[in-house]
Order: sequence, then C-alpha cells, then structure tokens
Amino acid sequence: MQFTPRLQQLLQALRSLPGVGNKTAQRMAFHLLERNREGALALATALEAAVHEVRRCERCRMFAEAGLCTICAAAGRDAGILCVVESPADVMAIEESASYRGRYFVLHGRLSPLDGIGPEELGIDQFTALLSGAGVQEIILATSATVEGEATAAYLASLAAEQGKRATRIAHGVPIGGELEYVDSSTLSRAIAARTTVAAGGSRGG
Amino acid sequence: MQFTPRLQQLLQALRSLPGVGNKTAQRMAFHLLERNREGALALATALEAAVHEVRRCERCRMFAEAGLCTICAAAGRDAGILCVVESPADVMAIEESASYRGRYFVLHGRLSPLDGIGPEELGIDQFTALLSGAGVQEIILATSATVEGEATAAYLASLAAEQGKRATRIAHGVPIGGELEYVDSSTLSRAIAARTTVAAGGSRGG
Repeated sequence: MQFTPRLQQLLQALRSLPGVGNKTAQRMAFHLLERNREGALALATALEAAVHEVRRCERCRMFAEAGLCTICAAAGRDAGILCVVESPADVMAIEESASYRGRYFVLHGRLSPLDGIGPEELGIDQFTALLSGAGVQEIILATSATVEGEATAAYLASLAAEQGKRATRIAHGVPIGGELEYVDSSTLSRAIAARTTVAAGGSRGG
Repeated sequence: MQFTPRLQQLLQALRSLPGVGNKTAQRMAFHLLERNREGALALATALEAAVHEVRRCERCRMFAEAGLCTICAAAGRDAGILCVVESPADVMAIEESASYRGRYFVLHGRLSPLDGIGPEELGIDQFTALLSGAGVQEIILATSATVEGEATAAYLASLAAEQGKRATRIAHGVPIGGELEYVDSSTLSRAIAARTTVAAGGSRGG
C-alpha cells in the first residue's frame, strides 16, 4: 500500500532524526496523527523556534540564544580554566557531574582530515584568541579517547604550549563502580600504564 | 546547567514522541541543531502539513488525504470482505504480507470500558452502516489477541450475526519459522487447541 503524500513526507522527515528508521518513523507518525496532534504542532513550532533562535555562544561556541551562553554569562564561573570538548552534549555531561566550575570551549567535532574537518571547522582561531587573553591559565583537554580525539588534544596542547599556557588531559581508566572483568582491554591497559602511587596513609594518589 | 528556553521547549516537544526519553531527546535536538538544521525545518513543515491534511477515510477510517483512502479508492479491491483492525499500523502490516485484497475497517483502538473507550470511540455506527450495505459478505476480525482485542472481536461478531453476515477470526498459533522452544506457552496452548487435520496426501490442512 502506498502512503499518502503528506504521510510519506512526514515519514521521510522523521527518518532524519538520529536512531530513527522506517518502523520507528511509522510508529511516531501514527502516534502523533492518531493520539497527539497538538503534540505534533507543538513539536513543529519548537523546531522552528529552535532553528531560528538557537545559535553558538560568541565566546565558547556552546548553544546560546543571546550573544553569550548561560555558562559564559554566569558570574560565578572561573575564567582561568577552559575545558575543551567535542560537542554540547559533552558540556551537559560534565555539568551534570557538578565537578567543574570553569568555562568551556566547544569544538563541534574533532580533527579529521579525511572528512574535511580541519582547524577552521573547529573554530581554532577563536580558541587561540581566547587562549592569548590574559585570563586563561589552564586548558583541560576533554576530547574523546579516540584516535581523532587524541590527535585533536595533541594539537590543542601544542597551541597552548606556544602561548605558554598549561594544558592537561582528563584521566582515562577504569570507571568508578566498574568491575575489572567487564572493562575492555584498551581501557585496562591504559589504566595500568597510568597507575598512580598510593600515599602511605592509604588514600589514593592523584 | 540550564538549557536555553527554546532548547528546553524543543526537548519537551521531542519527548512527546513514543519511545523518546530525556537522553534521546537531547541527542535528537543536538543532532538537528549541530548538523541538520534544514532537516529540522523540513520536519516542522512535514508535521504541520500532515496534521492539517491527513484525516480519516470516510469509509474505513484509515488515514486519507482525500475523502477516501487509497485502498477504498482503488478499483481492484474486493468490496465483499472487510478486515477489521485496531490501528493503521495493522493495515500496513497486512498490506505488506500481500495476502489480502479486500477492504479494511480501522477501529483506532479496542473496547476498553475502564479507559472510557466504548463503541462510539471505535466508530461502530459507521461499521454497522457498512455492514448493512448489500456488498459486504464477510468480516475478518483481526483485532489483537489480548483480552480487550478478543472482547472487541466477540462484540463485532455479534453485530455481524445480527445482520446475517459471516464473521471470521484470523488464526492464532505458532509463527512460521518459529522454533517451538521459543514460543510462549499461551501461544503454544492455543496452537494445540486449534490444531487442524492433516490431509492424507501429506499437505497441511486449513
């Protein structure tokens, strides 16, 4: 059976969402049309508003509606530390951990010459401008532990060194609460290579 | 961290999709805003168009954009058989099996007095009007094999009997290609109760 044209259009548009295939798109479309037409209209309005009004923070490239994002605009954040991440989702994850009070820089990707992603796409000009300012003392490299993520971190570290700024990398190792048995071998070998001395008192070294 | 208002609105709207929770909504929103803003606008347009133009077929209550759905409008369908299903997704599933050339009637639900779903919500007036027409000789009850689905089937069968029309129920049993070992026990007990005689020639009875 052929879907009607509008329905076909809707199914195709829904498939552009990450993780949504044919069956899921059909389930979503039928759900909205059968049971939640107001929800469908609200979603349409929200999509349009977000596309037109959400842009990048002028300073850190996080999502923002004004010139600065809520983190850059907040008074209480430490302007001396800059945590460099690959995506806005990484910012959300670090914020949820409530363990960091500095600012961020969002690359929106990682160096990947084969995909045509170079320094320009990652806003490196903006990053070096931020770095050369007097305020920043340390950059924390929180790019992913992949080949491209490591290459990006190494590149940013060299930029920081040029400016005489301290660059640090987040620790990689066995997750807290993780059982060794279920940890993959590259994480384990990294955890062993990056082992730390246990202080005589018995507390864990850093 | 607080999401910006537009982003918050978008996340909430995305959560109204079936199977989408907080994390998935965030992944969808970030994906659209970072990498596919045209896709987001296309989705908004498609949602609005579908909500405004997709309604129910005047005859069978399937999704339609004109007065009749594509199945009711098609010339080659057998108007003598009516397959009653619970949802448009069921119509799609039966159409995909390419084993049925009659028409449909879509209930958009099943009898469930506790949820306030009675004959009126299921379009039973429309169903009896169709049934009393001269054309229909048989109704196939393809409601789900749940308590409510069975009750709905029994109710529709009694309506058919009142009109002197033949009512049949789709067969329930072990799925084709299914290994007995993995079939649930209620399906198995039904398959045994509804066993059919094997013809002497060795081919399976019907």
